Amino acid sequence: MNETPELRRDPITGRWVLIAPARARRPIALTGHVPHARTNGERFPCPFCAGQEADTPNEVFAYRPPGSMPNGPGWTLRIVPNMYPAVHVEAAQPAAIVAETFLESAPAVGYAEVLIDCPQHIDNPTQLSDVQFRDVFRAYRERMRALAADGRLAHVAVFKNVGAEAGASLGHTHSQLISTPIVPELVQHELTAAEGYHRRYGRCVYCDMIERELADGARLVARSEHFIAVTAFAPRFAYELWVLPVAHQARYEAISDEEALELAVLLKRVLGSLDQCQHLPAYNWFLHTTPLRAGEPRYYHWHLEITPRTARPAGFEWGFGCHITTVAPEVAAEQLRAALPPP
Amino acid sequence: MNETPELRRDPITGRWVLIAPARARRPIALTGHVPHARTNGERFPCPFCAGQEADTPNEVFAYRPPGSMPNGPGWTLRIVPNMYPAVHVEAAQPAAIVAETFLESAPAVGYAEVLIDCPQHIDNPTQLSDVQFRDVFRAYRERMRALAADGRLAHVAVFKNVGAEAGASLGHTHSQLISTPIVPELVQHELTAAEGYHRRYGRCVYCDMIERELADGARLVARSEHFIAVTAFAPRFAYELWVLPVAHQARYEAISDEEALELAVLLKRVLGSLDQCQHLPAYNWFLHTTPLRAGEPRYYHWHLEITPRTARPAGFEWGFGCHITTVAPEVAAEQLRAALPPP
Repeated sequence: MNETPELRRDPITGRWVLIAPARARRPIALTGHVPHARTNGERFPCPFCAGQEADTPNEVFAYRPPGSMPNGPGWTLRIVPNMYPAVHVEAAQPAAIVAETFLESAPAVGYAEVLIDCPQHIDNPTQLSDVQFRDVFRAYRERMRALAADGRLAHVAVFKNVGAEAGASLGHTHSQLISTPIVPELVQHELTAAEGYHRRYGRCVYCDMIERELADGARLVARSEHFIAVTAFAPRFAYELWVLPVAHQARYEAISDEEALELAVLLKRVLGSLDQCQHLPAYNWFLHTTPLRAGEPRYYHWHLEITPRTARPAGFEWGFGCHITTVAPEVAAEQLRAALPPP
Repeated sequence: MNETPELRRDPITGRWVLIAPARARRPIALTGHVPHARTNGERFPCPFCAGQEADTPNEVFAYRPPGSMPNGPGWTLRIVPNMYPAVHVEAAQPAAIVAETFLESAPAVGYAEVLIDCPQHIDNPTQLSDVQFRDVFRAYRERMRALAADGRLAHVAVFKNVGAEAGASLGHTHSQLISTPIVPELVQHELTAAEGYHRRYGRCVYCDMIERELADGARLVARSEHFIAVTAFAPRFAYELWVLPVAHQARYEAISDEEALELAVLLKRVLGSLDQCQHLPAYNWFLHTTPLRAGEPRYYHWHLEITPRTARPAGFEWGFGCHITTVAPEVAAEQLRAALPPP
């Protein structure tokens, strides 16, 4: 294997990263550095399990049989407000920073919500049935459409933390939705960069990337009729995966039920492979899509980014924004393809 | 205490963050989430201690008595190549990405070096003598000046990881220098934003910030004749601190020996206070300064950023670039001022 370290630049954001295989052999003498941990310590009774509905705030959305009562039994998926929200529906103007233009401050209006994937105590998303997994993606869509009605909101961040190392504080598989009156920095950077590319070349940068990845194949992990899964060309974490619709689609909310099922089936295979290759790593996935009131831009293309916590970022990453990974994405893709469960 | 969550935007980069005090009470059921860990597990014999010089690559810089032999005894500070470098002096062109313009790739030419602060096995920088601490800052300057002679390099990232949670793999206090042919993303964003501010207002944005922080005082933690330490207005981590020269200074390399001593004395006090307030947190510090071949810009102002690992970033931070902290910087500053050791 080629051990020459390499710099790569993400073609969308312009972000540079380092790929340095030699660092994989670095000894770790201090304890507490467990990059792969998907710890299974738990709180019981689990507030996300069937029968524990009283342990969460009242649901704002659910899949449940007709006629069943909200917050009662029978549900197959629930969305509830986060008990410890980072944003608040009725946020007040911060008192300290009134009439200040240099140090800008604004109320953190928004909704912090938890999507409970299933009533059973399942801690690995790949153990969900295809229909349960599909319903997670359907519920993302429904909830994003509902939140769009609140004119104060600019963005809905939809993501999943799997394992303590990835930030999950409960094991029962769940997602989070955090909606805010601002577009978060990384999303804004992506939009700006993608718009610039479109202005220069008249094309969607993601469409161009997909065309190249399909033609090249080195980073292609799996594909279905409408979606592909590739390892990121300039990853922040080793084994970082992106899943994209092959055809141009600016907004996630446009996904059909059939596509949601297809995405679920593809993702279950890819995550199963990741679990095998990296021994159940902690990971996140992030839904990147066009912000709420930004139309249907021809330059932006929704996608999922999956970041396994294969390393714990240290000074160089945090301080300077340059991530160091130890596995080239072409090597990761080869391993992931080999470990892929059959369709 | 006001529990209303608040959004704040960094006046320099435009980065938005959330301050959400209510999240401080969030229960953590999964184990493995130990945000404050400054673990002291060790590798013995420590390769950074006096007498173990053969355990490191040959030194590239040292403070040692006249006439003593390189890599022999007597040194008070050494800089050695990192045994597991992320960049390489003789990096080759990556073979896979030749004549490709879309997926840009470049050799990771550069130097990854470790600065060993002292010959004694000290794991807390505040235990260094004032002169030892000063010499760390003198050595940063000397090494940056020397690296500038390599015309392939664009930037020297100088930083310190303290504690395993902050990325340190050895406890013996040390810094890192990673020089690269590219300017890392966060530095480039800062430069671009600061240049834009200067174009609009004809002033250095850091000078304006310092003036306001001195007049306001709410985030001021300590000051000396030439430096101030403040909590960041829009922190990524609770208790995040910035240390800046009060007068405009574009390049760190311009620091005098006297200023290096003054900075060391100030920083020892501030870090001592942080250790007390947060019970020996893991932390990093990052030197942000004008890149190697970028002149003496009137718009940029070097500074140190200190980020305690008061939380482990999860999905929202990584996926969307929006950090959530639980302590307002004005509250943190008040606590840090109260715990400050006497000058």
